[in-house]
This record gives sequence, structure tokens and C-alpha cells, in this order.
Amino acid sequence: VTSPAPVRIDIGEAGIRSQALVGHGLIDRAAELLESPSGRYFLVFSEGAGPAALQVGAALAGHVAADIPIRDTEEGKSLAGVGAICDAALASGLRRDDALVAVGGGVVTDMTGFAAAILLRGVAWNAVPTTTAAMADAAIGGKTGVNHARGKNLIGAFHPPRRILIDPAAARGLSDRDWRAGLVEAFKTVWIADPDASSRARKRISSLVRRDEEALLSLLVDSVSVKAQIVSSDLREGDRRRLLNFGHTLGHAFEAASGPGTLRHGEAVAWGIAGALWLSRRRAGLPREQESELLEALAALGPYPEPVRDADLMRLYLALDKKANAKGNAGVLLEAIGRARVEEGIPIGEWLEASIAAAIPGR
Amino acid sequence: VTSPAPVRIDIGEAGIRSQALVGHGLIDRAAELLESPSGRYFLVFSEGAGPAALQVGAALAGHVAADIPIRDTEEGKSLAGVGAICDAALASGLRRDDALVAVGGGVVTDMTGFAAAILLRGVAWNAVPTTTAAMADAAIGGKTGVNHARGKNLIGAFHPPRRILIDPAAARGLSDRDWRAGLVEAFKTVWIADPDASSRARKRISSLVRRDEEALLSLLVDSVSVKAQIVSSDLREGDRRRLLNFGHTLGHAFEAASGPGTLRHGEAVAWGIAGALWLSRRRAGLPREQESELLEALAALGPYPEPVRDADLMRLYLALDKKANAKGNAGVLLEAIGRARVEEGIPIGEWLEASIAAAIPGR
Repeated sequence: VTSPAPVRIDIGEAGIRSQALVGHGLIDRAAELLESPSGRYFLVFSEGAGPAALQVGAALAGHVAADIPIRDTEEGKSLAGVGAICDAALASGLRRDDALVAVGGGVVTDMTGFAAAILLRGVAWNAVPTTTAAMADAAIGGKTGVNHARGKNLIGAFHPPRRILIDPAAARGLSDRDWRAGLVEAFKTVWIADPDASSRARKRISSLVRRDEEALLSLLVDSVSVKAQIVSSDLREGDRRRLLNFGHTLGHAFEAASGPGTLRHGEAVAWGIAGALWLSRRRAGLPREQESELLEALAALGPYPEPVRDADLMRLYLALDKKANAKGNAGVLLEAIGRARVEEGIPIGEWLEASIAAAIPGR
Repeated sequence: VTSPAPVRIDIGEAGIRSQALVGHGLIDRAAELLESPSGRYFLVFSEGAGPAALQVGAALAGHVAADIPIRDTEEGKSLAGVGAICDAALASGLRRDDALVAVGGGVVTDMTGFAAAILLRGVAWNAVPTTTAAMADAAIGGKTGVNHARGKNLIGAFHPPRRILIDPAAARGLSDRDWRAGLVEAFKTVWIADPDASSRARKRISSLVRRDEEALLSLLVDSVSVKAQIVSSDLREGDRRRLLNFGHTLGHAFEAASGPGTLRHGEAVAWGIAGALWLSRRRAGLPREQESELLEALAALGPYPEPVRDADLMRLYLALDKKANAKGNAGVLLEAIGRARVEEGIPIGEWLEASIAAAIPGR
């Protein structure tokens, strides 16, 4: 029995070619779907993604030059961690026409992509995300990198993978909490730019919460398509791409203020979206019933631990935001479901109000 | 008194813009000639380049956000060393629109350029080379990177500097030996592609050996122009760019076989060119009198320590060459002064013969 053809989504401008493949049973077809100029692959994976990595390795049988296991913690996502990937790849005889394959969540895809960017001044790589967060967000768009004591993702490169292989089965090992938190990014992406996809996403929520893989696949086709359109039109960091930060100004601050390990990234973004919706109603005319609709959707993907909302901490982390300037922080506001805009210089006081107002209804 | 306008040489394709400025008195005009989107500079320099760095710092007065001293040894040219530059820059508040400035030799420009490539996923940088080797070669063409236990420059990025400020006065602190060894790369560059510049270079040799800065400036205008033409037509690593490896196949092997610190890179390349000339006469029809002319020029830039020519060692290092394959190593051969070509698969035995035949006349 042959699986149906995967949905192919092209990402990038001329010369920077990346293709996401979304479908069932793709991992077993890795030999046909991944890309390596030489035909050789160097497999980088986290322990948690071991089963998926084994499956990818089996599918690439005879073409895997090295297995490179790494730890996938935010603390290990460092320049030294990427150096260790480089060491292992060079020790196994990596050549310029070989390719890396990342099998894991966002930490693994970010680190592997960055290692590929700097090994021999750039080799090809592929991503096989195993978390809903990496499927929806981390592996798409070409940003790779590591954390620094001064902040997350401060060191890195733009180096898109040749192929991103999105197979819902790869996320079977995820906890329910991680599975749902990752979906927040997929909802966010369709909400900023696609009313029809937003409406489809809404109808799928109960199936998604039940971990229906058909529903996940459909949501990801929509959200990856939207993200691909946005990043293709604006590959580095102009205004279009900034729309993807919807929910992230407060989200990052909530995540940092709450301390490491308290909130999943997607959970912090859910709280950040709740705050951004409050601002959107006030400043961008978002209708109240649309705000309620999105809050209901967030609620369905929860519950979320309460974030720390301490004003001094929030003020500190908002000031560290890359988009902060003397007038305040730029924010992404929703005018309606499927239509977002960037607003410059929203005063810090208003962000703090929004952080207190952010509320997600209980279920 | 205003200095005469510097010679401006554009390097790169559309979108990757780099400009070399060659002239006297440029360092004192750094504020006008270097480029930073924000107007702020982060100065990275080696101890040996301290005087030049002080001068650059004075010229940029009030616009230097941080001084970042580094060690410029081949051993320190590591991913960890670049991490230390990143740490210092981020600790001093580097933002995306700031620029680094490298003041030093090739190790400093290679490391600073690589740090600029990965900091905040890429910030601008400028190079102020203080060695003849870096002026002629290292700072031109966009290759940045660090060494790895498995080989030199195995980790890095293409990230051209905005401006390369070539002021002969910056090399006054160099030893005679380093001054002359660096010139070998400038001669090599004109020899592969420009008969007229080769003839001018020949006439300048005695002035160059006397460290005449006017002669250095003229030679560098020629050699940087040739290298700019080659790398602009072929920014990554196609056939045109490979011509710049003239003398480097045997040169790298001599350098490695002789052990660290024995031969300057330029000295190893001089021996490598001598071997490549022997091959060029045999395989590419290089006339004997032209071979003699170039060997005379090399002799004038010497003397050079004898390289280790042990066949087993040479065989080992030739096999590690990036351009080695089953048939042998590709080599760059000279058909005539100013006209080079790449020849694939020259058998290892012939390279070993050439390594023994390589001879530079005594003075």
C-alpha cells in the first residue's frame, strides 16, 4: 500500500530553497524525500526522539554516515553544544556535499541547522520535527541558533533546511501537555493572516485535543502554508515577518518572569496572545465576539499554569525585548481574525495593563 | 593637508556588498570610511595590532562601544575563541544595527568576521588588516571562520566585511619576514590572472623588499582588484575561485608536514608555487623563461626555511586536501604568466615528484 502523496509547501526566495512535506507515513519514505547532494546523511537527534530517529535511520539504511545524539535542553542549546555536533560530524568525515538530518524538537532543529550553517562554511540539512511546536514553527523559516547568557537565540544564522518532513506519527511520544502547547503556535499563525484557515482550525479543536492525527495534519498544512507565505515574502526580518511575533512580546516576558521550566513556550505565547487580544480590542478595533472566539480556542488547548505577572519583572523583560525602543515596545495587533498589523511604540504601561488583563476562560 | 582619495575596489555580487579602500592615511579617516548602520563600533584587535587599534579607536572617538582584545594564534582561532568575542560584544550591549571592526592579521579578521556572521544572526563588520598577508588575502573575499582539530578553517561562514581599509602604515609593526611572506599571496594573485599587473609587480620587487609603502600600495591595488574580480564572479567556490588556490595544494601540505610555527603561510605557499610551476611546465606548457622569472621573484621575497618533504607525510596531508578525490588532487596550473587553469585528478605520485622538484634559487 502506497501512502498518499504528501502536501508540498515551498518556502523561500530564489536561491534559498526549502520545502516542507506534510503527510502520513513520510518518515518511512525518508530515503526518497530527504535531500543530500552526496547521498550521505549525518543523523542528529535527542534521546526523546530516539524512536523517530531509529525509524529515520532505518529508512535511510546504508546512507547514514554517523549517529549524533545530543541533549535537547534550553541550557544545552549553546555554542559549545553546536561545537560538539561539529566535532562529531568532522570526526566522522563530513564532506561539503553531505547533509545533516535533525530529528527532534525545536532545540534539536535549531542547533542542527546552526551546525549545518557553519560546518565547512555551510552544508545542507533536513529537519524531521518530532514535536507539534517544531512542526508548526521552529523548523520553518530558516532561523537557526543557540542561546546565550544574555538571552535566547542571540547567536545563530539564517540557513533553511532543504526538506522539512512533517509526519504526525513522529509526535506520538509527546506528552499531552507538550502536544497542545505546540499547537498554540499553529493557531497563532493562521489567526494573523488567514480567516478561512482560522475557521477550519476552530472546527478541528476537539479532534486536535483528542490527538487526532488527521486533524493535526490539516492544521499544519494550513499553518505551514501561511508561515511559508510570510517568510518567503520577507526572508529576514521586515514587517511581514514581524507579524509572526503575535503574542510573543508579552509571551517572552511571561516565560522569563515565570522562571525556567514553569511555562512551555507555547503556553507563555497563549498568555501573550490573551494580552495582545486585550490590546487589539482597545487599539485595533478587534470585535469583542472575535476576541471571545479566540480565547475559547486557547482555553480548549489549555489548561495553562498561571504566569508570573509581577510588574517589575515584566518591565525588566519587556525592556530586553529586541523590538523595544525609547517610545515603548512594538506589538502585533489583530484587527480581525486573519488580519494583523504591527504597531510601533506601545507604551510600557499599556503592556503592563495588558499583562494583568490577560485572561483565558476556564473549561 | 588632505590625503589623496583612496582607490575603491568593489567586491561581491548584488546584495553582498563589500568595498576595499586602498591608500595612505586611511586609518585616521576611519570615522568617514568605515560603515555601521547605527554609527556604533565594537573594536576587536590582537595585542600585536595594539598601536593600529589605538589609532582606529582615536579616529572613531566617541563611537566605540567596546574594546575587545583577543589572542591571535592559530591555536586560539577556535569556536571557543569566537564565543569569547560574542560574549564580550553582547555584554557590551551589541544591537543588530551595530558593527564590529577587526584590527589585526588574518586570524583576527577571520575570527571577527565569523563572530559578526553569527551574532544576532548577522551584524555588519569592517576589516583593518595590519599584516601584508591579511591586506592581500585574508580580509578579501568574504570567507571567515576558525580552525578545528581536524583541519584549518573547517568551521565558518561567508560574511563579507562592509569595508576593508588597507593602509600600508598599519603594517609598520610587522617583522621583515612576515612582511615579505605576506607579499607572496599578492604576487600569486596577479600571476594567475593579470599579465600586466604581473609585469608591474616584477618591477617593484626591490622597492617592496625595502618596505617601500608606495610600492606596497600599488601592488595591493593590483592584487586586490584581481581577487575582487575573481570572487565577485564566483562568490562561493566554483572554478574561478579555485584559481586562487595556486600554490596551495603543495603549500598546505608543506605547511602541515613541517609542523606548526616552522613556515609562515606565505612561505609555504612560495614552496607550493615552486612545485606548481614545475608541474605547469610539464603539463600546461608554461615556458621555461617564465618559470624562471617567477622563481626569481619568489627568491627575492625569501629566504624561506626548508620545508619538510617526507613522502609519507606529504601523502597524508595531500589526502586530507578538500579537493582530493579517488583520482588524485586537483591542481592549479599556469599556462603562462597571468593565465591559470584548474586541472582535475593529478596523481598523487606526480605531486610527490613536484614536492621534491620544488626549488627556489638562492640569492
